[in-house]
Amino acid sequence: MQRIAYQEVYETLLEILLRLGFSVERAQLCARLFTDASCDGVYSHGVHRFPRFRQMIESGVVDVHAEPMLAAQLGAVERWDGKCGPGNLNAFACMDRAIALSRQYGVGCVALANTNHWMRGGSYGWQAAEAGAIGICWTNTMPNLPPWGATEPRLGNNPLVLAVPRASGHIVLDMAMSQFSYGTLEAYRITNEELPVNGGFDAGGELTRDAAAIEASGRPLPIGYWKGSGLALLLDMLAALLSGGLATREIARDSYQETRLSQIFVAFDLPAIDQAQLRNEIVNNIVTFTHGTNPGETVRYPGEQTLKTRLENRRHGIPIAADVWAQITSASSAS
Amino acid sequence: MQRIAYQEVYETLLEILLRLGFSVERAQLCARLFTDASCDGVYSHGVHRFPRFRQMIESGVVDVHAEPMLAAQLGAVERWDGKCGPGNLNAFACMDRAIALSRQYGVGCVALANTNHWMRGGSYGWQAAEAGAIGICWTNTMPNLPPWGATEPRLGNNPLVLAVPRASGHIVLDMAMSQFSYGTLEAYRITNEELPVNGGFDAGGELTRDAAAIEASGRPLPIGYWKGSGLALLLDMLAALLSGGLATREIARDSYQETRLSQIFVAFDLPAIDQAQLRNEIVNNIVTFTHGTNPGETVRYPGEQTLKTRLENRRHGIPIAADVWAQITSASSAS
Repeated sequence: MQRIAYQEVYETLLEILLRLGFSVERAQLCARLFTDASCDGVYSHGVHRFPRFRQMIESGVVDVHAEPMLAAQLGAVERWDGKCGPGNLNAFACMDRAIALSRQYGVGCVALANTNHWMRGGSYGWQAAEAGAIGICWTNTMPNLPPWGATEPRLGNNPLVLAVPRASGHIVLDMAMSQFSYGTLEAYRITNEELPVNGGFDAGGELTRDAAAIEASGRPLPIGYWKGSGLALLLDMLAALLSGGLATREIARDSYQETRLSQIFVAFDLPAIDQAQLRNEIVNNIVTFTHGTNPGETVRYPGEQTLKTRLENRRHGIPIAADVWAQITSASSAS
Repeated sequence: MQRIAYQEVYETLLEILLRLGFSVERAQLCARLFTDASCDGVYSHGVHRFPRFRQMIESGVVDVHAEPMLAAQLGAVERWDGKCGPGNLNAFACMDRAIALSRQYGVGCVALANTNHWMRGGSYGWQAAEAGAIGICWTNTMPNLPPWGATEPRLGNNPLVLAVPRASGHIVLDMAMSQFSYGTLEAYRITNEELPVNGGFDAGGELTRDAAAIEASGRPLPIGYWKGSGLALLLDMLAALLSGGLATREIARDSYQETRLSQIFVAFDLPAIDQAQLRNEIVNNIVTFTHGTNPGETVRYPGEQTLKTRLENRRHGIPIAADVWAQITSASSAS
C-alpha cells in the first residue's frame, strides 16, 4: 500500500471518467464517491474496485450515459429504473430523491430496479445523515451466500445500511449478511492470518476460521447462522417486490457480469420531527451509555472508526495497493 | 407439556382478561394474540408469558384501560403514545394504522412510545401479511445484551420483524439481535443440551455452547458479533428518535418492571404496486430457488415451520407447560 493524496486520487479518477464519456458533473460525483470510500477506510469498495468498474463500462455492462428514470409513483413510494447506469450515481440519485420525499411525507422510499453495484453502501447512509435525515438502504446481489442448511449460494449477501445524523459524528452501519465479505477473506488469506471468529465452512462442512478454506468451499457464513440467512432472503424479496426488478436468483453469478440489481432507499425527515438539539442529545446519550466506562473495554459505534480514518487519510494520503494504482494511472495516461 | 384445545385456551384467557377489566373487544384480541403465539409454536412469547402479563397488570405496570393516542402527524409518519397500555394491543393498533397509512401514501410508519412488551413480535408481521402488505417492525427492550467489546448489557436485543405476504404462506422473519433469547437458553439448560452454536461468553470470557454458563455471565452473543451489536444500537436509536420515547438505556432492567418501550411499525402497500398474482409468482420463485433440490439438505424460509406447527396444534391442542396451565386456571377459578 502506498499513500496518495486525496486530491491526486480524485483528479486521476475524474480524468479517466471524463474520457470514458461521463458528463462533468457526473464524473465529479463518481470520482468523489470512489475516493471518499477509500479515504474512509473502506478500501475494498473504493479505489481498489475502480479497475473492475472501468472494465464493466468497457464491456458494456455499465452504461455511463444512463440516468435513472421515474417508473411509477405512489405517494411517498417511487419506483425508479436505473437503466444499467453507474451504480453509485444511481444510488446517490435515489437516496437524494428519498430524502426529498421524506421532506414532503415524513418518510420517503425509492425502489430502484436495473442498477449496478453501488460500491460502498455506507456512502448513501452518510449522504442521508449529512442531510439531517435517517437513512436506510439495502441492495440485493448475485447469489454468493448459501442459505442456512445448504451448500450452494442461493442468497445474496445483500448489504444493509442504517444511518442516524449527529452533529459530532454520524452513526452509520454498513453490513453485509455474510460474516466476512469475499474481499475480507482475501485479505486474511494473503496475510495468512486466522479470522477472529468462524467465517464459514470448509470443504468438509466444518466451521472454520481459515479464510482460504472458505474461499475454496464457497460457503461463507451468514451472520447469526439461520438468522442472517433469513434476513438476506427477506431483504431480497422486499427489493424485488418494491422495485419490480430482479431478485438474487435472476442475477448473473459473475462479479464482472453482475448487473440489474434491485435496491431500496428509505429516508425519514428528522428535522420535521424534533429540534436538532434534542435529537443530538438523544443520540449522544445513547452513544455515551453504549461506550461505557469500564477500563480495558473498547466499544465502538458503527462509523466511529470512520471519522478517525478519514482524518488520517486526508492528512497523510489514502492507502492504495501499489499494483492497483499503477494499473489505474497507466490506463489513465494510455487512453 | 400437555396439549390443550385452542378454544379452551382462548376462552380461559378471555375470561381472565374480562375479569381484569378489559372491554370485550380488547379482551378478545388480547386472548387471541396470546393463544395464536403458542399455537404457532412461539411458546416462550405466548401462553407461557401470560402469568407475567397478569402480574404486570396487577402491579400497575400495564394499564388495561389505556388506549394508544395520536401524538403527532407528519404525512405518512405518525407518533403514537402507548400510555403504558397492554403491549400486544398497542402494537396491533399501530401496525393496523401503519397499514392504513400505506394505503394512502404507499408507505406508512407509526412510531410508538410508552408501550409495553409486545409479546410475540411476529404477530404484527403476520397481521401485515394477512392484510396483503409488507410489514416491518421492531422494538427496543431493557438492556439485556452487552455490546461487542463489553461485558455488561448496554444494548437491548431489540427484536426485528419483516413480513412478506404470499397466498400459499406468508414469509415472516422474527428475530432478536441476540443469537438465542433468554427463554431459549433456559430451555437448553433445563434439558441439559448443548446449544447448536456458540451462544455467548462464559464467566471467563470464552465463547461457549453452555446455556447455563451464558445465563450466569449475562453475556449472550449478538448475531454476527460486532454486526448484530451495531444493528441493535441503530434499531434503538431509530425507535427512540422517531417515537420521541425512551431508549434502551432508560428502560428498567427488570423483566417485571420493563415498560415505556419504543417501537416502530412500517407497512408498504403492495396491492397498489402490482397485481397479487405477479407478487405471488415473484415470492414463490424466490422460495423455490432458495429451497433448492439437493437431496439431504433442508432449507426453510422464515415462517415455513410456523404453518405446520399451527396446523398440528390446531388439530391436537396447544402444548402448554403443566405448571403454567395449572397456575392460569387456578387463578381463573379463584378470582
